[in-house]
Amino acid sequence: MGGDFAPEAAVMGAIAAAAAIGEDSRIVLFGAKDQIEAILERENCPLSTFDIVPTTEVIEMSDHPAKAFTQKPNSSITVGFGYLAKGLIDGFASAGSTGAMMVGSMYAVKPIEGVMRPTISSLIPTVTGRSGLILDVGLNVDCKPEVLYQYAILGSVYAQHVLGIENPRVALLNIGEEREKGNAQAKATHELMANNNGEFNFVGNIEGTQLFTSKIADVIVCDGFMGNVVLKQAESLYHIMKKMGVENPFLDGMNYEVVGGTPVLGINAPVVIGHGCSTPLAIKNMILQTEKTIKADLTEKLKKVINKN
Amino acid sequence: MGGDFAPEAAVMGAIAAAAAIGEDSRIVLFGAKDQIEAILERENCPLSTFDIVPTTEVIEMSDHPAKAFTQKPNSSITVGFGYLAKGLIDGFASAGSTGAMMVGSMYAVKPIEGVMRPTISSLIPTVTGRSGLILDVGLNVDCKPEVLYQYAILGSVYAQHVLGIENPRVALLNIGEEREKGNAQAKATHELMANNNGEFNFVGNIEGTQLFTSKIADVIVCDGFMGNVVLKQAESLYHIMKKMGVENPFLDGMNYEVVGGTPVLGINAPVVIGHGCSTPLAIKNMILQTEKTIKADLTEKLKKVINKN
Repeated sequence: MGGDFAPEAAVMGAIAAAAAIGEDSRIVLFGAKDQIEAILERENCPLSTFDIVPTTEVIEMSDHPAKAFTQKPNSSITVGFGYLAKGLIDGFASAGSTGAMMVGSMYAVKPIEGVMRPTISSLIPTVTGRSGLILDVGLNVDCKPEVLYQYAILGSVYAQHVLGIENPRVALLNIGEEREKGNAQAKATHELMANNNGEFNFVGNIEGTQLFTSKIADVIVCDGFMGNVVLKQAESLYHIMKKMGVENPFLDGMNYEVVGGTPVLGINAPVVIGHGCSTPLAIKNMILQTEKTIKADLTEKLKKVINKN
Repeated sequence: MGGDFAPEAAVMGAIAAAAAIGEDSRIVLFGAKDQIEAILERENCPLSTFDIVPTTEVIEMSDHPAKAFTQKPNSSITVGFGYLAKGLIDGFASAGSTGAMMVGSMYAVKPIEGVMRPTISSLIPTVTGRSGLILDVGLNVDCKPEVLYQYAILGSVYAQHVLGIENPRVALLNIGEEREKGNAQAKATHELMANNNGEFNFVGNIEGTQLFTSKIADVIVCDGFMGNVVLKQAESLYHIMKKMGVENPFLDGMNYEVVGGTPVLGINAPVVIGHGCSTPLAIKNMILQTEKTIKADLTEKLKKVINKN
């Protein structure tokens, strides 16, 4: 149970998700058992809807993520990752401390062998209604071309198997279409990507003008410094427009509540990180996204592709 | 006369600007004299409204900018920069080849002594109605911290004297508020900026969420790789929303036609670069922006501040 509005929002989101997931899926809740059960009872939700693993500690946003992960062994995040690492659950999602979620991803679940740097990605809306994927969105802020190259692979596999896009078009975020455009990092990365031996469907550079058009690409690769700004800019425009009374389904796609969470890609199990300020709707979508990733058997598919190299 | 719709759009824009500029200002047109005069006559605009300097060549978008600048000495851009360098005009603006405009800025007008890298900036709208300034937006894609530091000075002076913002707040575009956030470039730049000895009003980092809120900053500093993507993303959202029938004054501020053009900062005379696809409204605003920069005596003010160091 993580997030600024935990456990209330988390439990309410889980109740909504339970009604939407497949019959063969089951949601396991990690958190303060008494509080969780009180909310379930209040909502007339049978306790048997969920497995509940009681935890007693909370990793605060002000805690040092790495220290808290080990010093608070009874927090929902630490216990959850323990279950995930042991295979007692198939995927894990939380709107708690992003830092602690990454610590768990890197040290409990661990990167897939051969993955240089796992990454966090995000769905972005396009005018066609079909989502695109952008990565990295804040984890690795200084990326070597080889790392961005691998992001292209990770994003491509996710887009194909979780988003259901056949032969996803992968582009490099840049300031011009031509291959000689961009900073040193972009130029070197373009060279690498252009010679990818069919590992992914590279369509070249994409400019900021085409991020949401779906005309160029399904998967957009950039470093976490750029991706984080792009994502936050989009989100802020959603909020500004909303406040101004503009209702628009395309803009709604920039709402983190709809998006659900950011999948961590390149590790040995499905992990999805929600926003700290996640509402019940956001939690619900985060859980559904995790279920989808599990059912797509993404981890095995990533392992296969990465170890082909 | 430059731009995809030249000379038609350029002349129409100049006619509109002529009606709006100060009585002590005069617009000089560089271009195909016959064509310009034909449009003026058709529009019942007295030929005496403008000075016309006839030019016979055109730098095409497909031309190599540096080569074309010297090999087409009779192009409007080359002739215009000649006039500017000789002080025959006080500022120069064109929607022609951006590359050739930069060649003219760097080699005919030249950087102000002490400026490491001149920059191109852009106004961005905020929800308050007051514009912010972002720089660089595409010229220098790999920036040392020292260069970004100078951008803070250039942007601050422009915001104060051209935009009329007292003690403009300068922020570094980053992925978190805390000083230790960001990539290697951002961290080193933050350190430098935080110790600026009162050269500008540094308010710390700004995230993508705050670009348009005006809550944090008036001047936003980033390298040209980031700035270009941010700007194009904003523009594309304006166009997408417009196509979807959303009319909104805030979004209109992301329309390049309203913005006018990108001022080149850090060179020895006012130069404004318009979009290649500039319409008459864009040309008009580009000219008015140039007039404003001239009247603010920006170049002298920049020289004073830069040479203080």
